[in-house]
Amino acid sequence: MKELVGIDEWKIVEDGIHMHNNRFYESLMSLGNGYMGMRGNFEEGFSGDTLQGTYIAGVYYPDKTRVGWWKNGYPEYFAKVINAPNFIGIDVILNGEKLDVAKMKVMGFKRELDMQHGCLKRYFTVQDKKGNVTEVCAERFLSLKRKEAATIKYSVTPVNYDGKIELTPYIDGNISNEDSNYDEKFWNEINRKSTDFNAYLTMETKKLGFRVTCAMKCDIKGESINIEKSQNISREKYVGKRFLVDVPKGKTAVLYKYITVTNNRYINNEKLEAEAVNLLNDIYRKGYDELFLEQKNAWNEEWEKSDIVIEGDAKAQQAIRFNIFQLSQTYRGDDPRLNIGPKGFTGEKYGGCTYWDTEAYCLPFYLSTHSSEVSKNLLIYRYKHLEKAKENARKLGFKGALYPMVTMNGEECHNEWEITFEEIHRNAAISYAIFNYVRYTGDEEYLPLFGYEVLVETSRFWADRVTYNKYKDVYMILGVTGPNEYENNVNNNWYTNKMAAWNLKYTLEVSKLLEEKYPKRYEELKRKLKISDDEFNKWKDIINKMYYPYIKEFDVFEQQDGYMDKEQILVSELDKKELPINQHWSWDRILRSCFIKQADVLQGLFFLGDEFDIETKKRNFDFYEPRTVHESSLSSCVHSILASEIGYKDKAYKLYLRTARLDLDNYNNDTDDGLHITSMAGTWMTITYGFGGMRIKDDMLSFNPYIPDGWEKYSFKIFFRNHIIKVAVEKDLIKISQSSGEKLNLRIFDNIYAVGPNSEIAIKY
Amino acid sequence: MKELVGIDEWKIVEDGIHMHNNRFYESLMSLGNGYMGMRGNFEEGFSGDTLQGTYIAGVYYPDKTRVGWWKNGYPEYFAKVINAPNFIGIDVILNGEKLDVAKMKVMGFKRELDMQHGCLKRYFTVQDKKGNVTEVCAERFLSLKRKEAATIKYSVTPVNYDGKIELTPYIDGNISNEDSNYDEKFWNEINRKSTDFNAYLTMETKKLGFRVTCAMKCDIKGESINIEKSQNISREKYVGKRFLVDVPKGKTAVLYKYITVTNNRYINNEKLEAEAVNLLNDIYRKGYDELFLEQKNAWNEEWEKSDIVIEGDAKAQQAIRFNIFQLSQTYRGDDPRLNIGPKGFTGEKYGGCTYWDTEAYCLPFYLSTHSSEVSKNLLIYRYKHLEKAKENARKLGFKGALYPMVTMNGEECHNEWEITFEEIHRNAAISYAIFNYVRYTGDEEYLPLFGYEVLVETSRFWADRVTYNKYKDVYMILGVTGPNEYENNVNNNWYTNKMAAWNLKYTLEVSKLLEEKYPKRYEELKRKLKISDDEFNKWKDIINKMYYPYIKEFDVFEQQDGYMDKEQILVSELDKKELPINQHWSWDRILRSCFIKQADVLQGLFFLGDEFDIETKKRNFDFYEPRTVHESSLSSCVHSILASEIGYKDKAYKLYLRTARLDLDNYNNDTDDGLHITSMAGTWMTITYGFGGMRIKDDMLSFNPYIPDGWEKYSFKIFFRNHIIKVAVEKDLIKISQSSGEKLNLRIFDNIYAVGPNSEIAIKY
Repeated sequence: MKELVGIDEWKIVEDGIHMHNNRFYESLMSLGNGYMGMRGNFEEGFSGDTLQGTYIAGVYYPDKTRVGWWKNGYPEYFAKVINAPNFIGIDVILNGEKLDVAKMKVMGFKRELDMQHGCLKRYFTVQDKKGNVTEVCAERFLSLKRKEAATIKYSVTPVNYDGKIELTPYIDGNISNEDSNYDEKFWNEINRKSTDFNAYLTMETKKLGFRVTCAMKCDIKGESINIEKSQNISREKYVGKRFLVDVPKGKTAVLYKYITVTNNRYINNEKLEAEAVNLLNDIYRKGYDELFLEQKNAWNEEWEKSDIVIEGDAKAQQAIRFNIFQLSQTYRGDDPRLNIGPKGFTGEKYGGCTYWDTEAYCLPFYLSTHSSEVSKNLLIYRYKHLEKAKENARKLGFKGALYPMVTMNGEECHNEWEITFEEIHRNAAISYAIFNYVRYTGDEEYLPLFGYEVLVETSRFWADRVTYNKYKDVYMILGVTGPNEYENNVNNNWYTNKMAAWNLKYTLEVSKLLEEKYPKRYEELKRKLKISDDEFNKWKDIINKMYYPYIKEFDVFEQQDGYMDKEQILVSELDKKELPINQHWSWDRILRSCFIKQADVLQGLFFLGDEFDIETKKRNFDFYEPRTVHESSLSSCVHSILASEIGYKDKAYKLYLRTARLDLDNYNNDTDDGLHITSMAGTWMTITYGFGGMRIKDDMLSFNPYIPDGWEKYSFKIFFRNHIIKVAVEKDLIKISQSSGEKLNLRIFDNIYAVGPNSEIAIKY
Repeated sequence: MKELVGIDEWKIVEDGIHMHNNRFYESLMSLGNGYMGMRGNFEEGFSGDTLQGTYIAGVYYPDKTRVGWWKNGYPEYFAKVINAPNFIGIDVILNGEKLDVAKMKVMGFKRELDMQHGCLKRYFTVQDKKGNVTEVCAERFLSLKRKEAATIKYSVTPVNYDGKIELTPYIDGNISNEDSNYDEKFWNEINRKSTDFNAYLTMETKKLGFRVTCAMKCDIKGESINIEKSQNISREKYVGKRFLVDVPKGKTAVLYKYITVTNNRYINNEKLEAEAVNLLNDIYRKGYDELFLEQKNAWNEEWEKSDIVIEGDAKAQQAIRFNIFQLSQTYRGDDPRLNIGPKGFTGEKYGGCTYWDTEAYCLPFYLSTHSSEVSKNLLIYRYKHLEKAKENARKLGFKGALYPMVTMNGEECHNEWEITFEEIHRNAAISYAIFNYVRYTGDEEYLPLFGYEVLVETSRFWADRVTYNKYKDVYMILGVTGPNEYENNVNNNWYTNKMAAWNLKYTLEVSKLLEEKYPKRYEELKRKLKISDDEFNKWKDIINKMYYPYIKEFDVFEQQDGYMDKEQILVSELDKKELPINQHWSWDRILRSCFIKQADVLQGLFFLGDEFDIETKKRNFDFYEPRTVHESSLSSCVHSILASEIGYKDKAYKLYLRTARLDLDNYNNDTDDGLHITSMAGTWMTITYGFGGMRIKDDMLSFNPYIPDGWEKYSFKIFFRNHIIKVAVEKDLIKISQSSGEKLNLRIFDNIYAVGPNSEIAIKY
């Protein structure tokens, strides 16, 4: 595979300009700070292919749905992440000619994402038709500390001529979404102002009225330069400021653009503009250098918590940092109304909505790298949507709660019947996240306070959704789509049946726990939820009589009824030219084939790992993995973790690289649309849960580590309850140290060790 | 059920105006002549709810598809029947006030479809605000004899005032399709002309360039009237002629509007207008009365061939005539490029395209009521599409030919994966139609000339589409949707497996026939089609080892694998308020239920009736019919025919009424969109194949008739090879007569009778 980015442990570098691959680099070079984010677009005008994208967390648009054939129960709208006003723009005119790297001779070009400090830089040199050579350097960052702030430093140097340079920083609200169903524009202008002191633009989204103010204040500095003229510009949906600057040959004009972005998800409409201006004045006073110092410190702190260090494999090192960097940019955990879209702030695809990815893949990363408040906010997000999930179930004719497949505010957005109505396993993931959170954090009180209601209502859904088969005296779940979306509308997907029964079982366990430890609250909840013994008995009956398909010939679980009636071929027998099958095969052929998109039975073996022995895991892995095409970004990580567990080290490492470098190497040829943010959390797990063999069992952290061939050493840090643990794995040595917290017992392989405060233990293996 | 139309054996009458149900009556009152057709719209302006619709056979638009989520293999466009220029329009101004029954006081209103003569009439009286009363009578017909011609007679009588009446007949090309995916208009203007002699407008469709000229010539006549002024009007996409007429109180002004419509499917672009004017001059010379006489004669001839007479049940009589009338209007059988859209010329829904309805339901009607050329053209239509069907199969990765689910020109138009890719049983219907045609007409030569190639290529598709299951040593067909579209993506739909094996078997039989009787042509075809013995052996293996699901408990065929895992409830146990389930239930609930949309297993028992004994049919009917909601217009007829066969007379009659009066009684509450044309042929079968027990077996017509309770007598005519046979059934007497043809042997019940030329036999039963 050819390398698309240079290998550097802390940087992602595009060296030389790639006009036909610009969207790919724009995606990679995305910046975010949890509050807002943007693709690695150019500040100056660019007439080549680009996907301009600025996104503000939680600001979405309920786009009119587009379906071929309407089905009862479909949602009325599809929530879209919305491309917000472009505040990075700076038009540049060099001696009368517009700066545009697509049209000028480019003599050198480098775009560089500095992951260590959360900053994007570009250096390039252009020559116009008259032979004038100009050097440009652009740097920008979104402040991690001041979420509403962004800063740009844009330097222009006429190398071999005396320049008359026009620089026009602006804010543009006349933007559109590529992913709009009916070519609508989503924003209306509310107000704008452009003065000598600052300029701002307030825009509002149609329908839902999200209001955003972008304000800017600019400075031009430079030795021997002369600002000949400056002019405020204001026109519909646009404010800007034009500077005409004389820059002597070899000298540099530096434009500083300070930006703040406020929105009415946090601030009242009336105060939006004043607040934007206040914040703007603050950062302007600070100045670029000091703000950048803040940024460095903030990112240092971030890395201190979450970095994974790999020695002896720069590719792997770069990859894992890229994954962690993007995750940290996307979700900060300070607002329970927010969640993690599969593309974060890096593109429009998948509408920026919430999927089960959050519970199944992202939660473990945030549990181990941030305080428990962050993960708790992810859970509270779903708790707040419980009423909508109940409505959703009612709409489909069921009791209890069915959480949506895709959502922004709790309402279902997806409109393919085989997903919307049938990919119901997602409901169990919501419950599993509660289990996982409590198991990890020990925050048992979450259950009586919030978790139990969700557990009961999801259980009620399952109890109503099963079909009792009187001929066979079993409960079945008919008409579902499992995690493997290359099967639709199947009966008795093993994973779904398993997780449904698990959900019921866990709810009963929690009921008992509440009854014993929180009796008063339990009585209150029982009354509120109108729980009866009959209902519990029904659940027990379902748990006892749940039907699980099974393949006798191979002694493995059967993915669903009839899976073995399919022609059994292995992925290795396929012509490489047919891969990925989702780009080469018609849909019916995919459905009819035995090929698996992502972990399905194996997802269950991962989630409920304690229930199965290594031999069972191995048999199922041996059967299913060779039939899996890994065409979901969420596939490789689970397989890699299981491969580690059963001792398939080569396989585990191969799959690690595939998930870790999915975007950097553009593995699925779709990074143009944006990054695969949620799968990045899976990548993090392949190291910690996979190579590190981390698990939580009986309230105790345990590790079962090994080191991939070719690595010298790797280390990661884990927040666990009140402890900060560092795990370092070398060829034959494991070191565990604690930098914060009281004495902690941990299990390494089969032994329990105590690690004291600020101390380290070393184990040979 | 309340009666929406008056009961009359030859008429459909709307008595009084129904502003909120206007679309329903517009659908019922549709006119057509195979070449063009239109809904029962008003000539004068109408501001109420209306679906204006004029359609020209074969003139369609490849509308951009609209899908929620694109799947590989989906077609690029969806062909739409196109609303054509409105040529019936006549604007009327009465003493300065625009005639509009939605805005004036209506003192009497009748809209009446005369099925005997193919003519639509309206009589109504209105009063304006000043108290002026006006009577209007409008008559129009589309000539059955002169396919390009339409004529309108529009009479206006000022009852209690001296009228200044403005009449503006026009042709309007500025029309739109309600069923346009992106609100596009489909027509461009090419030319227009408006002179004292005539006016015409030539429009062309976008993309495909179908060109249509509509020409008109008008006269105003009436005792004591005075044409004060006349004025030619011409503006974009519009030509008209305004007459200002003085009409004394109690006198009548009669506007005659003669129209011709030519199109470039038959006439070169250069000659379109000249030809339209020529034909216009012809009909103008004839005059309205003579044209109407022609129309009467043509329809008398039509009824002579196809009428079914029922005595003692006016509702049944009206219904069957309505069905026959609409079928005869829709398809005339003179152009093998045309076919029968599910809504004919009565609405936009279903795109006016061709479905398997034609082969499965319509063919028997045309076989028995028209010369064999008509049915042959229906077959040739598919023969001409064979190359496109092969392309379609290749696109999905298969050998042979897969005919499209929905098509205009042979290309697939439908875009739901579960239908487009999976409802493949349609392929067998194409082959079955060949079998059915040859069996009926005895035109064996059709096989070597055309039929065999279709049979071989459809067989090849089946042979490639099956999956060999080595564990069970059977062939399966996975991932299909059967005729019951309330199941999607099932394995081993019994009907599909059965028809696939039948298709292979019939092809092998025809191979043998060709080898014996047309050896030279057979060798030629074998070479052309590259047929090998290996291929035939493979087909035999599939026929022998095809797997058929079966329900042991009930000794019936199982609709598909796992059908019995569903909760088994009968339709009679459902709350009536839940019906139709497709309007009340979410799609997944429908899919998960055992409820059946239309005949599925039973469709197979009907098609391949000779293979199964009465007891088997009865058992399967008893099992499946009570689980069938009949929510397809094509359901009742097949069930009625089978009910007749197994002696369930009440059920048969109930289902007959349901199919026959589907539109007249607006049973499914969807007649607004247009009529259910293809199911009307099924209605015809419920009498002939159902009550009459007609079958063709061993080259012989046979009947097994009975008479529904409450009927005095019914009779129908049958074209069979060179014979015209009339069958009349009374309470205890069957009369069979032959009005044309040599001596013919027929089977009645279990005996064979010979009917001589121009003679009759009577059998007591």
